[in-house]
Amino acid sequence: MMKTTPRRVTVSLVLAAAVGAASLAVTVRAQSEPEDGPRYRNGTELIRPDDYREWMFLSAGLGMTYEAEGGEAAGSGARPQRFQNVFVNRSAYRGFKETGAWPDGSIFVLEIRRAASEASINVAGNFQSDLLVLEAEVKDSRFEDGWAFYNFGRAGSMPDAVAPLSAEDAAPCIACHTEHTAVERTFVQFYPTALEIAREKGTLKPGFDQE
Amino acid sequence: MMKTTPRRVTVSLVLAAAVGAASLAVTVRAQSEPEDGPRYRNGTELIRPDDYREWMFLSAGLGMTYEAEGGEAAGSGARPQRFQNVFVNRSAYRGFKETGAWPDGSIFVLEIRRAASEASINVAGNFQSDLLVLEAEVKDSRFEDGWAFYNFGRAGSMPDAVAPLSAEDAAPCIACHTEHTAVERTFVQFYPTALEIAREKGTLKPGFDQE
Repeated sequence: MMKTTPRRVTVSLVLAAAVGAASLAVTVRAQSEPEDGPRYRNGTELIRPDDYREWMFLSAGLGMTYEAEGGEAAGSGARPQRFQNVFVNRSAYRGFKETGAWPDGSIFVLEIRRAASEASINVAGNFQSDLLVLEAEVKDSRFEDGWAFYNFGRAGSMPDAVAPLSAEDAAPCIACHTEHTAVERTFVQFYPTALEIAREKGTLKPGFDQE
Repeated sequence: MMKTTPRRVTVSLVLAAAVGAASLAVTVRAQSEPEDGPRYRNGTELIRPDDYREWMFLSAGLGMTYEAEGGEAAGSGARPQRFQNVFVNRSAYRGFKETGAWPDGSIFVLEIRRAASEASINVAGNFQSDLLVLEAEVKDSRFEDGWAFYNFGRAGSMPDAVAPLSAEDAAPCIACHTEHTAVERTFVQFYPTALEIAREKGTLKPGFDQE
């Protein structure tokens, strides 16, 4: 008896230790991949993500025109070309890699930056400079049609959170993002690595599915 | 005695469990942040990183000229403008955020892509298309002067690993990356978010430290 009692205790505690360690492992792994989906205030006001530059870079363009920019740039005459960078939260990109579709909770951040040239060394071409405007498109089932558009406005005066564009203001965004996009409401045709994934998964709209 | 023996066993095993759990937590956290530094074959041949698109995006340029490109594009006459994207491994960027300097094991990937326009919808400007060329610069104390340059060549015929450029081939890279760079041997003046960090940390070379 004196020999068996400690052994039973030993076994039970080792099992307890193993279970405890396993659950701790899960906890730590979860902490290492923070929830990066949209965060809201008052239900639908999107809290400006302060770490979007560390998300997945989808692509950059120079001088491409967007409906949303038209409003932002109203009043300016012939305006200089600008760079547009698009980033998506990493969990959304992981989902897209698996299915070729954007999961609920996808956030697309459009960053518009000044195009500079011939600075520091006299290089040809354009490089990216000051942040000018920040916009976002969100896929979230909380919205009636599953999507919402946000405009954080000009750098230097961006609110911490903004309400989605009104139905009237969003109408041109929705029209363009519905009629002219390769995957759902996103311009995957301009995102070369995402375009490859959508082609493999067969999720490109008709007309975008040729090599 | 019969009561105290199991208790001692219990205490010692609980301590063992705690220690085991703690070490396991460390292990799992390490797994969740995979080592993303340079991987070599035969000492200095850089194994092409297949996940650099998920690294930190530093910036994009259009039509910027690089010495290394000159070689790559030799023989082509007036060539079309191309996009250049620069990515850095995440652990290197974390170090840069803390110190304003690039840690040992930093990898900078230069991705050159075709610039397309007026596709799918008749937008103005240029967007990024096919990958053309992949190059890399590595900061690693294993190299005599701490840096090495790599050229993986043209898309479609990229080797899994390449040797660093020879002293002769690297000479123009080193000259330009020494004389014209804002931080160490990197063109931080063209990477707007890294430029802000270097300005805060005071690591910009003289002449680059004005707002």
